[in-house]
Amino acid sequence: MSTTAPILFSATIAVRWRDLDAFNHVNNATYLTYLEEARLQWLASLRGEWMNEGAAPVLAASQLNYRRPIEWPGDLRIELAVERLGSSSITLSHRILAGEPAGLCCDGHVVTVWIDPRSGRSVQLPDAVRQACAPTGG
Amino acid sequence: MSTTAPILFSATIAVRWRDLDAFNHVNNATYLTYLEEARLQWLASLRGEWMNEGAAPVLAASQLNYRRPIEWPGDLRIELAVERLGSSSITLSHRILAGEPAGLCCDGHVVTVWIDPRSGRSVQLPDAVRQACAPTGG
Amino acid sequence: MSTTAPILFSATIAVRWRDLDAFNHVNNATYLTYLEEARLQWLASLRGEWMNEGAAPVLAASQLNYRRPIEWPGDLRIELAVERLGSSSITLSHRILAGEPAGLCCDGHVVTVWIDPRSGRSVQLPDAVRQACAPTGG
Amino acid sequence: MSTTAPILFSATIAVRWRDLDAFNHVNNATYLTYLEEARLQWLASLRGEWMNEGAAPVLAASQLNYRRPIEWPGDLRIELAVERLGSSSITLSHRILAGEPAGLCCDGHVVTVWIDPRSGRSVQLPDAVRQACAPTGG
Repeated sequence: MSTTAPILFSATIAVRWRDLDAFNHVNNATYLTYLEEARLQWLASLRGEWMNEGAAPVLAASQLNYRRPIEWPGDLRIELAVERLGSSSITLSHRILAGEPAGLCCDGHVVTVWIDPRSGRSVQLPDAVRQACAPTGG
Repeated sequence: MSTTAPILFSATIAVRWRDLDAFNHVNNATYLTYLEEARLQWLASLRGEWMNEGAAPVLAASQLNYRRPIEWPGDLRIELAVERLGSSSITLSHRILAGEPAGLCCDGHVVTVWIDPRSGRSVQLPDAVRQACAPTGG
Repeated sequence: MSTTAPILFSATIAVRWRDLDAFNHVNNATYLTYLEEARLQWLASLRGEWMNEGAAPVLAASQLNYRRPIEWPGDLRIELAVERLGSSSITLSHRILAGEPAGLCCDGHVVTVWIDPRSGRSVQLPDAVRQACAPTGG
Repeated sequence: MSTTAPILFSATIAVRWRDLDAFNHVNNATYLTYLEEARLQWLASLRGEWMNEGAAPVLAASQLNYRRPIEWPGDLRIELAVERLGSSSITLSHRILAGEPAGLCCDGHVVTVWIDPRSGRSVQLPDAVRQACAPTGG
């Protein structure tokens, strides 16, 4: 996440004890669940349709840097920013922050593409998604 | 994963119905659980110690390309290969394959670093791990 | 599970490392995932329809006795038996077994009821389910 | 949970999208994760030690009645009450509530026993736990 990229959406997520694994830190896979939750909360917050029978979001790629372990109990702040806006995909960079003062636990990005579930082919981004990602240019 | 990289370890993992999410495909986070399972089965298969009170593996980074959705029921084959061998870390590339003939569902890599859990600092790779990753050169 | 109840279905499930929690044993909730997997494998094995747009199975109740901890790695055997056959529900008792010789890790039962998802009301068991549970009486 | 049993502890838990399964409702196993989270938040809130190297809580049994499906997004209220206080175990009844006005999604109880992890044998309840469960009688 570029230090100058404006934050698109910020979510607060409570760590659950079950997020820990046998090494007593939040499991590496659960970071993607946190990002998914923030991303879907963002989509659900949009004015307008972000999914219908002909257009649904699926993940194309993810890249995570694990900066420091996450412990239980605690609240996380998930920050999402637009890294790249394509015709059928968006790349959202992220930061996962914990503690006071907030420490960076994870950064990286996730690429989501909209497809037609019936054909599996990529489709144009829904208007509501595009406009939310590029508010000034529409 | 380079097409010429020799396979370090191969694991078979059965998809569970609970791996599916509300979109009826295996959830994106679960791919990391499959990779973790294969990686730990590999480590458990080594002759010699891969973890002790002064050296434990933690994830530093992960990069996944989601190539096609995974369905239930079915068995997956997880292939791991050494992409880079560092002094305190290993980068394992992977392929997740499903179906007959096998189709590529995911590729990418995961970076694991060995740290001293007491200090959080990186330490030399355990001998058993290094030797397994570089069998000819020791 | 009555010691004389015939086994309806038996499934083998591999424990995953992620099934462990911070106490280093398989987490209590994961037992229900094992039972769900066995139950759905059983339903998927039936000749005939066990679900359609007007009839879907949902859980009504579960009762588990945790007899001994489950460790990783290892394979589990899940045994299901019919404890009670109702007009719209089935009660399946279970045993979860691990190790050699097999030790009992969990017993108890799960009640599944078929409902019409559109109304939420219970419906008659699908014929394929009823016949599988009462093979002699039809 | 008896309607007259005083509430021992109440926790608020946010449903995550990943808690849903392919039937688009919170998966049955996740209810146990919600109860575990509430129970551990309660234990962490006690004045005094609830676990040490010679005494750790493990689940002995669980019984859940699934009253209505849980959806995403939403917050849940988890209420715990003491149903039975033994010498080495506690039985906590629960209610999981969702929505406005609050609707009952699940009730039942969970039995937790304290054991010595080194021997596997049950031990006396830690004083802090006993006192929290029987505040008037000590």
